[in-house]
Amino acid sequence: MNGMNGSYEVKNGEQISHRKRSLAVTEFIQGLLTKNDDETHVVFCQLDTLTKKDEEVIWRESARWVKYEEDVEENGKRWSKPHVASVTLHNVLELRTQMFGGALVLDADVTNIPQLADLIIEELSKNKTITENTKSLIRSSLLARHVHPHLKRRRISTADSGGNIITQCSMPKTSSAADFAKMKARQHAEGRGETNGHLPESSPLIKLNKPFMKKIPEGAQVANVWVGEIEDLKEPITAFIRLDKPRAIGDLTEVPLPTRFIFLHLSPVGEPGHIFAIGRAMSNMMVDVIFSEVAYKAKSREDIMHGFDEFLDQTTVLPPGQWDPEIRLEPPTKVPSQEGRRRFESIAEEEHSDPTLVRTGRLFGGLIEDIKRKVPFYISDFKDGFHIQCLGAVLFMYLATLTPNITFGALLGQSTQHYMGTMECIVAVAFVNLVFALFGGQPLIIMGSTGPVLVLEIILYTMCRDSDWDFLPFRCLVGLWSALFLLIIVAFDLSALVRYITRFTEESFACLIAIIFIVESFKKIFSIADTHPFNTHPEIPLDYTCFCVPSNQSSVYNMTTVPLTTYAFNSTTDTITNWTNVQREDCARLGGVLEGSGCGTTVYHDNVFFLSFIIGVGTFGVAWALVNMKKSTFFPTVVRQTIGDFAVFISICSMVLLDVLLGVPTPKLMVPNTIQPSRPDRPWFISPYSAHNPWWVWIATALPALVAVILIFMDQQITAVIINRKENKLKKGCGYHLDLTITTFCLVVCSFFGLPWYVAATVRSMAHVNSLKMESECTAPGEKPVFLGCREQRLTPLIIAILNGCSVFMTSILQLVPMPVLYGVFLYMGVSALRGMQFMDRMMIMLMPAKYQPDHMYLRHVRIKRVHLFTFFQILCLGILWAIKAIKTISIVFPVMVLGTCFVRKGMERIFSKNELKWLDELMPEDKMMKQEDEGELIVDDDDMDDEDDDGPIEFLQLKKYRKIGSVEHMPWNLKQDSKTKYRKGPDDESIV
Amino acid sequence: MNGMNGSYEVKNGEQISHRKRSLAVTEFIQGLLTKNDDETHVVFCQLDTLTKKDEEVIWRESARWVKYEEDVEENGKRWSKPHVASVTLHNVLELRTQMFGGALVLDADVTNIPQLADLIIEELSKNKTITENTKSLIRSSLLARHVHPHLKRRRISTADSGGNIITQCSMPKTSSAADFAKMKARQHAEGRGETNGHLPESSPLIKLNKPFMKKIPEGAQVANVWVGEIEDLKEPITAFIRLDKPRAIGDLTEVPLPTRFIFLHLSPVGEPGHIFAIGRAMSNMMVDVIFSEVAYKAKSREDIMHGFDEFLDQTTVLPPGQWDPEIRLEPPTKVPSQEGRRRFESIAEEEHSDPTLVRTGRLFGGLIEDIKRKVPFYISDFKDGFHIQCLGAVLFMYLATLTPNITFGALLGQSTQHYMGTMECIVAVAFVNLVFALFGGQPLIIMGSTGPVLVLEIILYTMCRDSDWDFLPFRCLVGLWSALFLLIIVAFDLSALVRYITRFTEESFACLIAIIFIVESFKKIFSIADTHPFNTHPEIPLDYTCFCVPSNQSSVYNMTTVPLTTYAFNSTTDTITNWTNVQREDCARLGGVLEGSGCGTTVYHDNVFFLSFIIGVGTFGVAWALVNMKKSTFFPTVVRQTIGDFAVFISICSMVLLDVLLGVPTPKLMVPNTIQPSRPDRPWFISPYSAHNPWWVWIATALPALVAVILIFMDQQITAVIINRKENKLKKGCGYHLDLTITTFCLVVCSFFGLPWYVAATVRSMAHVNSLKMESECTAPGEKPVFLGCREQRLTPLIIAILNGCSVFMTSILQLVPMPVLYGVFLYMGVSALRGMQFMDRMMIMLMPAKYQPDHMYLRHVRIKRVHLFTFFQILCLGILWAIKAIKTISIVFPVMVLGTCFVRKGMERIFSKNELKWLDELMPEDKMMKQEDEGELIVDDDDMDDEDDDGPIEFLQLKKYRKIGSVEHMPWNLKQDSKTKYRKGPDDESIV
Repeated sequence: MNGMNGSYEVKNGEQISHRKRSLAVTEFIQGLLTKNDDETHVVFCQLDTLTKKDEEVIWRESARWVKYEEDVEENGKRWSKPHVASVTLHNVLELRTQMFGGALVLDADVTNIPQLADLIIEELSKNKTITENTKSLIRSSLLARHVHPHLKRRRISTADSGGNIITQCSMPKTSSAADFAKMKARQHAEGRGETNGHLPESSPLIKLNKPFMKKIPEGAQVANVWVGEIEDLKEPITAFIRLDKPRAIGDLTEVPLPTRFIFLHLSPVGEPGHIFAIGRAMSNMMVDVIFSEVAYKAKSREDIMHGFDEFLDQTTVLPPGQWDPEIRLEPPTKVPSQEGRRRFESIAEEEHSDPTLVRTGRLFGGLIEDIKRKVPFYISDFKDGFHIQCLGAVLFMYLATLTPNITFGALLGQSTQHYMGTMECIVAVAFVNLVFALFGGQPLIIMGSTGPVLVLEIILYTMCRDSDWDFLPFRCLVGLWSALFLLIIVAFDLSALVRYITRFTEESFACLIAIIFIVESFKKIFSIADTHPFNTHPEIPLDYTCFCVPSNQSSVYNMTTVPLTTYAFNSTTDTITNWTNVQREDCARLGGVLEGSGCGTTVYHDNVFFLSFIIGVGTFGVAWALVNMKKSTFFPTVVRQTIGDFAVFISICSMVLLDVLLGVPTPKLMVPNTIQPSRPDRPWFISPYSAHNPWWVWIATALPALVAVILIFMDQQITAVIINRKENKLKKGCGYHLDLTITTFCLVVCSFFGLPWYVAATVRSMAHVNSLKMESECTAPGEKPVFLGCREQRLTPLIIAILNGCSVFMTSILQLVPMPVLYGVFLYMGVSALRGMQFMDRMMIMLMPAKYQPDHMYLRHVRIKRVHLFTFFQILCLGILWAIKAIKTISIVFPVMVLGTCFVRKGMERIFSKNELKWLDELMPEDKMMKQEDEGELIVDDDDMDDEDDDGPIEFLQLKKYRKIGSVEHMPWNLKQDSKTKYRKGPDDESIV
Repeated sequence: MNGMNGSYEVKNGEQISHRKRSLAVTEFIQGLLTKNDDETHVVFCQLDTLTKKDEEVIWRESARWVKYEEDVEENGKRWSKPHVASVTLHNVLELRTQMFGGALVLDADVTNIPQLADLIIEELSKNKTITENTKSLIRSSLLARHVHPHLKRRRISTADSGGNIITQCSMPKTSSAADFAKMKARQHAEGRGETNGHLPESSPLIKLNKPFMKKIPEGAQVANVWVGEIEDLKEPITAFIRLDKPRAIGDLTEVPLPTRFIFLHLSPVGEPGHIFAIGRAMSNMMVDVIFSEVAYKAKSREDIMHGFDEFLDQTTVLPPGQWDPEIRLEPPTKVPSQEGRRRFESIAEEEHSDPTLVRTGRLFGGLIEDIKRKVPFYISDFKDGFHIQCLGAVLFMYLATLTPNITFGALLGQSTQHYMGTMECIVAVAFVNLVFALFGGQPLIIMGSTGPVLVLEIILYTMCRDSDWDFLPFRCLVGLWSALFLLIIVAFDLSALVRYITRFTEESFACLIAIIFIVESFKKIFSIADTHPFNTHPEIPLDYTCFCVPSNQSSVYNMTTVPLTTYAFNSTTDTITNWTNVQREDCARLGGVLEGSGCGTTVYHDNVFFLSFIIGVGTFGVAWALVNMKKSTFFPTVVRQTIGDFAVFISICSMVLLDVLLGVPTPKLMVPNTIQPSRPDRPWFISPYSAHNPWWVWIATALPALVAVILIFMDQQITAVIINRKENKLKKGCGYHLDLTITTFCLVVCSFFGLPWYVAATVRSMAHVNSLKMESECTAPGEKPVFLGCREQRLTPLIIAILNGCSVFMTSILQLVPMPVLYGVFLYMGVSALRGMQFMDRMMIMLMPAKYQPDHMYLRHVRIKRVHLFTFFQILCLGILWAIKAIKTISIVFPVMVLGTCFVRKGMERIFSKNELKWLDELMPEDKMMKQEDEGELIVDDDDMDDEDDDGPIEFLQLKKYRKIGSVEHMPWNLKQDSKTKYRKGPDDESIV
């Protein structure tokens, strides 16, 4: 039994660590790859199996690899889904012995198949004698024609009736010498015998698979892997040929790419499927980035075999009892870079710090940097907007911005006695968004009304009313002061402070606003039941009759049967003879009494509420279903993409149609249709000077202006942070300073024209970004589409702004839109804003038993109780924010409280370790700084940290951030490892050969 | 560079095929396993890593295997999800060299850890000299205590504040000799020095993880795998120890199981994670069914190493560029049996033929067999019903059976002038289901009303009315004749014919009925708008006033303002002075005219329709969401299971509550509340004799009886086929003959009592089965729960029957239930009946581009166009059936048309090949027979087949079915392989050593 150590040599007694040997092999390969600079290419691999079809022996394409494997299914017509090519180790090792003993030519100068056959036979003869029969079999098999599944059947087969053919495809029927003889005879008869080695590249019979070329990277060369079983063969034949240059040596490949490698494996008949497995094992190697490079650069068999071993060493092994090798494994979303196999140096990590948030130290330095950064993109900002997806975004966002604005206008009008109303809001939203779209730092931000601003306006108005001051001039002064303060903020680059806004604050804020959207939309839908109550007994005819009767008559009066007979016989009451004509309002005055079931009863608006509910929920449901259809497997990508992009618009249209068809008078969107100030006695332009206002308000207004500044700064910048966050993959850079400058400019203009102040609206901006998200087109088959970023451009916000302004002229269309449809849209916006928040994930996890919890990275590294504690704190913050937002009178402090969450987050450093916070949130600037300074003891004891000043000197922010954050490879136990520990080079590494 | 062939020996020149060598290894192992009959056990494997924690060196449990791997996460407190343990081949090969060179003891008689340490040191010394330092390191490390994550922290750690501990868990910090010295000193101080080898098994400090024991198969023994890095070690130390018998040699394991194997690997500090990987590689082997057996039975190092190689050869290899080894692979739903590795014989295939559907050739032979089969289960049929799930099923199914029955009753009453009405239906449904539940062959079947039966009754009634015969006696005769015919069918085992009902017919029928349920429920909901129309202008008060006025006065009459003044001044019309008192009906007769907006207008029932829609869709939505919650990851299994089981009941209750709260008068379920025949002039008992009927009806009724028989037979048996289908995994066997007998008995009774004839109701029966489905409790962590079958019992149908009968006494509760709730329930039943039908899958596939289509087996084997063609035919059949069912007058032929689909299916054999039909459907009996006869040429040309008689002689059915159907291994290309081809033993197999 000497076979036992067959595959894996271990010299007894002298124990050689596999690790040392594999290190040697790796170093050898790394040497080969770096020293040799022969040109290398991406490899497209095609696996053909020798198959007998209708008496003819052919090479039938059975699988192909761009990166992942695609098989031709057994019906011979269908490509399988791309999958990870798993092979059993058995077959890989069998391939290895075959490669080792087979023919190997690394500079074959062949131009046609017969030459190739001769070369292989010659090379094989070097090692051992080959019978003439074997030679002829090799030659004949190589000459068989190649058939690809994308080709239409070329001859009308006699066995055409009903899939008989299926049974003969794909999997090889054994070929025998006799078959080849027949084939040759026929080929000869057809006039293309052996001499006709050069097949014309564009033979009219052979159509190349041009569409598939898109999926193959440019410059790719082909590795043709051919495997087959031949009955008459006595032992397996293997050959690996590298052509001296890429060549088309025949109709070998389904795509018009030149061949560089040929692998041939012919074997006697064995276990079913085993030659296919060997071919797949070889193909896997040929598409491997490192092995293919080795194959290009190899100078000897030793090089190839080393490449083989290096490849083998890197493979992942699944134990037989835990995995079914028949399973076609979906390609993973991400495959680790193979660069580590090429050289030892670890790859430099990404620098996460955001250069725009570093104080320049110069006046308006940040603003100038922002402009410099944005100008180069300015033209593309418009060009990039020409895409069908943007149309969908505009249609959706138009209604999504118009409606809250009109609601806001109505509220504002009520509160300020129409000094500013719906009309002012429409003008403001159009103007502010127009300016922001054209000049903003982050044009994806949608400017809109927010709750705290409304409260501020109300406070200002009440103040003026009580002091009998002119409201609009007063307000104008507040605006001007605010603008001044904001300018100071811009001048000193104080926007850099937003770096203290971590994911904790960001998600708490965004989540709150999203939840408010959801709750408000339900509240609004249900409030329809208040304005339009329903009759619970609709089978009883409604009776709204209400008459005024003389008070003394009321008790005997029988309303329903003889309502009018009463007064005819009753003339005791003084002057009034005809009580019917008495108005309800006058009745009491005239000494009468209102009688009848209609008096004092609410007017029932039946159906309205229930239909509104159906329409509202329906709008959300349809939009949600259509957006999710993007990810379904139905219909081609273009269709799904388009439906997904127009989801909200489609759902709005369908529900509007339903509403129109049913004819139930649901509440509709009402837009003013002429441009004039809401209050006739106010002009458009407001001078800050007013005779009613005392001189000292010119100074005193600086105080409310301070509040306004905090309010505007927080709302504006936190929204910007949320929009600019890493996950959105924005490429054109952000511009916090520029954003704030533009907001300030708009503030000044709005103040002078008596328009409301608008800042960035969180949920609308998020919805805007979400509606513009792009995914990569599929590259290699099986590679997952990657989220690429958003269509960053100024066109959609520009058009949204213009459309908002033009709403005044579209009232006839807009009044068709029922309000519940719009509430459904808000619901949709709120729910989709919640998507993908880590905070939401963590809340979900609270409801899950441990064994069902998804495999989030932070769960691997932080104890579940600590995660829950963190989430609990966040929920607490959210609750407090909610309470403040909900109580109208104190909601003015809301922005301050948002600021407060930053401090809460800071305080949590007392409770949570740096490591936990790193996984659950991100580190705050000081922490990063600390680390920089204190590399020896990175995991600092919490107690040491707490004395640190929370705000820290801002200058330190300019220090480079700690580079290693977020990297999975640098776990705490690594960071803390004793300095003595050597990496990668263990103590025994010196002994390597 | 001699390292290149390091791991895989290939002697140059002399090319040894890996295949031959691996065959030799496999044979060796198979020999070992069969010859040696030492006792073997299931192995539970625990991997501990040597870790430094608070100055103490401990063995910390880092992973465990029942079947799949579970890791302790880096936070040291959390078990990862069970996953497939993938290791890189590098580490596996490293382990192999370590095993080969390490200590190996296969009969260690040690009872405590110090003995073990001595044994290992002694064994290691045999091969090479070991320094004293190394010896002491080994000894100290072995003595470290073992810590398991399920234990609560035993000492109040000083570093308790905020997860500092995390950084020290799980992943080993290097231990050094100094650490061990400290540890020893402390242990000594604590009075448990080296001498204390026997740790008390139930030490009060150590709590064993009892709950986890449930997950480990009984009789399991433990393999303890210990790996660690020690700084001062010069080279790796490996030992594999098998104890001579299972023993508790210390506090090693988290569960109270005896240890049998110990693997120790200590290594100098190397790459991070590498020792853990080696430990995982070893653990993978220890839980492998074959290797663990080898480990039990091995007598020498050679045996172990052969086992290693055999294991290695079977592993699946994933190429590095296509897979990320960091991914934790979910355990697959099914793992292939490893028995093939144990011996060569292929496993006998399952016999698919159904013995109950074979004609016995004896009178009532099938019936007797059925009874014999069912009697042994009879007691368990009641005992198995005591489960909470059954309560959910009863509550759901009660309303699901009651409602259609009442609707049916109303229709039947209308059509037969109340000779049979709701009351008869309630009595019938209670009686028939009671009898069927007690004595039926398949008690899961719910008996109910079906459309065709209704049509038949109507035809019979019309016939009697037109001929002036007594309906009920006439009908009784038809029933008796039908019973006679059915008895003949039972006597001759003709139910065996249902074998011709293939999946094609089955799914077409079930799908049709399900779609009808869905469509009908929507129709019913929308029809509420007809009976309860809504006012599209509810803001305008409704005015139902309608007065009768003299015709000449009508035009000047002003209704709303002075409705009654008119007649006062108007006495031109003759006798009538007070027109107000004129009834609407009399108005025209008296020469008046009806005037007023209320005349002739429909009475509006506002709100009712919209609320009904909300309630109906809501019931479906809530039920659907709750049932799907079963599969979600929220809440513990028990909670989800309970919610899932009561899903429909919960949704009914919540919607009833909503309806009650809103108070809108939606249509309610109306049940009669006294037991008496619907028509007072009919008695309960009906004699077949009637003086009105001519004598010859006694014979003539045989004709309609024939129609009734086809109708009853088809409905009954096709439902039974659907319920008994393989996918439902019923274990107590079916009883087609018994079913039919009981149906016949009920038919007779119903005929005598003038009750409607009830047969198996497809959708209700499917809903019943679905509500009783069981899944296995998790076995090994990570193993997917398996669908086990249904709770087959007679209790739920029995209680459903009784409840139905008692409905008469529950009218006060039942009248709270709005009809739309019930329509929602029907919708739910229809939709869930469609789930999991291959036909539905294929229809979906029609809408999917090829690359998104799921990996169904039939798609691998049948060309997509052929699949679509097949689906198209099925849709066509469905369409025709639908049309027939829809057109009331011809719906009597519906059962015959269902029978027709069997012939259509037969005819499709002309269009589709056997192979295609095998994948898309199943083969019909003749085909199987054909195959049996014609083994040489199994893939018969279609044209040869077409002459076959479609029905075929029934005797042939008794032949054994073709055994190889459905087996993936026997692909067409195998079946058709030339007889010369040898399997498994290729031509070169003789040369094996």
